[in-house]
Amino acid sequence: MTAVTDEPFPERLTRQIEFLVEIDKLKGILRRSYVLDASRLENTAEHSWHLAMMALVLAEHADAPADPTTVLKMLVVHDLVEIDAGDTFVYDTAGAATKDAREAAAADRIFALLPADQGAELRRLWEEFDTGHSPEARFARSLDRLMPLLHNVAAEGRSWQEHGINPDQVRDRNAVIADGSAQLWAYARALIDTAERNGFFP
Amino acid sequence: MTAVTDEPFPERLTRQIEFLVEIDKLKGILRRSYVLDASRLENTAEHSWHLAMMALVLAEHADAPADPTTVLKMLVVHDLVEIDAGDTFVYDTAGAATKDAREAAAADRIFALLPADQGAELRRLWEEFDTGHSPEARFARSLDRLMPLLHNVAAEGRSWQEHGINPDQVRDRNAVIADGSAQLWAYARALIDTAERNGFFP
Repeated sequence: MTAVTDEPFPERLTRQIEFLVEIDKLKGILRRSYVLDASRLENTAEHSWHLAMMALVLAEHADAPADPTTVLKMLVVHDLVEIDAGDTFVYDTAGAATKDAREAAAADRIFALLPADQGAELRRLWEEFDTGHSPEARFARSLDRLMPLLHNVAAEGRSWQEHGINPDQVRDRNAVIADGSAQLWAYARALIDTAERNGFFP
Repeated sequence: MTAVTDEPFPERLTRQIEFLVEIDKLKGILRRSYVLDASRLENTAEHSWHLAMMALVLAEHADAPADPTTVLKMLVVHDLVEIDAGDTFVYDTAGAATKDAREAAAADRIFALLPADQGAELRRLWEEFDTGHSPEARFARSLDRLMPLLHNVAAEGRSWQEHGINPDQVRDRNAVIADGSAQLWAYARALIDTAERNGFFP
């Protein structure tokens, strides 16, 4: 769907709308996590909304002063590249080796759909989330890692079991939560300990 | 899932997490719109993310100066009440008669899960979106109305046909887009005209 109307509109608005239509595809990108009633896999669009809600509710737990609006925007845009690059499971080391190249190519295409100033702004947010050291990026990544732990505990470890993940892998891969929030990392460790005691790992 | 860990955490954090777990249910609330490839109905969580992206991309089209962060936050929280109240189709006049009472009861329960200060803040955003006259509320409602038009045109009017909706109903119910943005209302009218010419209505 490239032409949504028969009438000409300013190119800027047309490009904005075409971008918004294109990113609907994020609703078809499936993650390895289940929704919390475990009825189906979660898609990346609804995950991004859930993280936006986390940003609104948990902002006070950032260790370093982080601008809450920047954290919120980062989390809304942080997974757009998955439209082309797919979701790379956090424990997939083979996928991790090619992730940066796949996501950079995706960013080149997707952000270029927008007017140049907006494409550059959203790309900066994504890059900062992905690799940056700002308090906002560190805290946003903490939230992005904490949520799947809540999902896995709610689903009694279903995703961990399906993919043969052990508790030490989970502790190791999620230790970055501590870079953004000591409180949330303490909570995450308690979640993992609880999951281990309850036999949620394979 | 009320107790996510066996260890005690501060009540404030515990309530925040329990709220975040509860609202996962929004991913199970189905709307009348199809995702843009028309493969399935859209759920309210992914719709809320799509509107957050609209807020980021279309902010410049608000006629009155509207704080973009407030618009963004409003759209992230605007449909939380649907967890209990369900989605009320915009052309459902019987549902509209009970919508306010159902949604107020939902808000009483859902926002009360949070610490009181945060529950009050998010409830204010929802109430302002739902009934307010601020530039932010008017523009946020414009975006909320425009998106389903894009969906329906992409799906060649499938939802309109399934529910027996005619072009004049669509023009009438969506004229509120003009309260937030003359430009987006012009675009919306062109979409409806195009849909009518292409035979997308029943």
